[in-house]
Amino acid sequence: MFIIGLCGGSSSGKSTAIDYLLKQFGDKTALVAFDSYYISRPDLVFEERRMINVDVPEAIDREEIYRNILLLKEGKTIQQPVYSFETFLRESVTQETAPAPILLVDGIFSFYFEEIRNLFDLKVYIDADVDVRLSRRILRDMNVRHRPLEYIIDQYFTKVKPMHEVYVEPYKKYADIIIPHNRNDENDFRILGNLVKTFLHEEQTR
Amino acid sequence: MFIIGLCGGSSSGKSTAIDYLLKQFGDKTALVAFDSYYISRPDLVFEERRMINVDVPEAIDREEIYRNILLLKEGKTIQQPVYSFETFLRESVTQETAPAPILLVDGIFSFYFEEIRNLFDLKVYIDADVDVRLSRRILRDMNVRHRPLEYIIDQYFTKVKPMHEVYVEPYKKYADIIIPHNRNDENDFRILGNLVKTFLHEEQTR
Repeated sequence: MFIIGLCGGSSSGKSTAIDYLLKQFGDKTALVAFDSYYISRPDLVFEERRMINVDVPEAIDREEIYRNILLLKEGKTIQQPVYSFETFLRESVTQETAPAPILLVDGIFSFYFEEIRNLFDLKVYIDADVDVRLSRRILRDMNVRHRPLEYIIDQYFTKVKPMHEVYVEPYKKYADIIIPHNRNDENDFRILGNLVKTFLHEEQTR
Repeated sequence: MFIIGLCGGSSSGKSTAIDYLLKQFGDKTALVAFDSYYISRPDLVFEERRMINVDVPEAIDREEIYRNILLLKEGKTIQQPVYSFETFLRESVTQETAPAPILLVDGIFSFYFEEIRNLFDLKVYIDADVDVRLSRRILRDMNVRHRPLEYIIDQYFTKVKPMHEVYVEPYKKYADIIIPHNRNDENDFRILGNLVKTFLHEEQTR
């Protein structure tokens, strides 16, 4: 198994990169998303939950995601949690994830935890300008997560941006390659596709 | 022929990347260096020549380097100029450069000229922090180019740094991939080596 860590700020294009790879390599790939591993707080009411700062590493169940990646590496199928960004709760269903030749691990904190970072055979940082990322985030949070515009902008400047500068951007230096993705063009991930193709080929001929 | 453009600030590690590729792929590669194409000014005396700003694109014979890359692409051997950073003059000898499956084009301005940039099949930007680059530059200019320390530092802050911010850094956005190279470790270029290997393989099986 070849493990690719995908890091980058909010709305940098990590999901677009993953969609691009899934389209090409489909069932040759498995995905573990940091977004699935937010610690659930059903003991809080909605108004309290929506104020939780999910832009700090402590919001992630670090041990659970680490353990799940290790299990996949050992060839075992895992039950990946499903987290709702509308209710801010872990859902009762899980997503079964089977091991595959290529494992993609995606999330803003994917380079932050050393023990997880050290599992990656390739570290890719997707980079986009702050204004590009903000505009994409507004579009996504309004259209997909059904959040009010004022909440989105307030959350961006009070949590997303300052936390990005502390927990994400400084870890860019660990990347093997950085991919600029300011245009909304999936061809930005062409070289990444080439690399995955090569690694798949090497895995198969090993 | 597969053409790779290598860009990055002064002392970012472009030459280290090239050495790494040459070691692996040797005669499968040809190299065109922007540093060879500085316009020579034998009409000036040494003290005037050393004050020439070589950190602006106008210092490069843009047409000559473009023409040479095109000739190599057409399968023709070129005579590449040889420029001396000690005398600030073009030397009377030339360096014969034969076409090869992989052509590397290296220089701080390699992304700046649009007609040249458009020839690249892969655009790679080597990135290092400014202090890392300054320290490498001081070491190189003292040990290899035999320049006085005060001259090096003055040149850095009056020409290299301000010109970098205008003519080099803004063109990073054209990169397909950016490679961080703050450690002095050639393994930073491992992924680039993988890519070249793949492209060589594709060229050969085409």
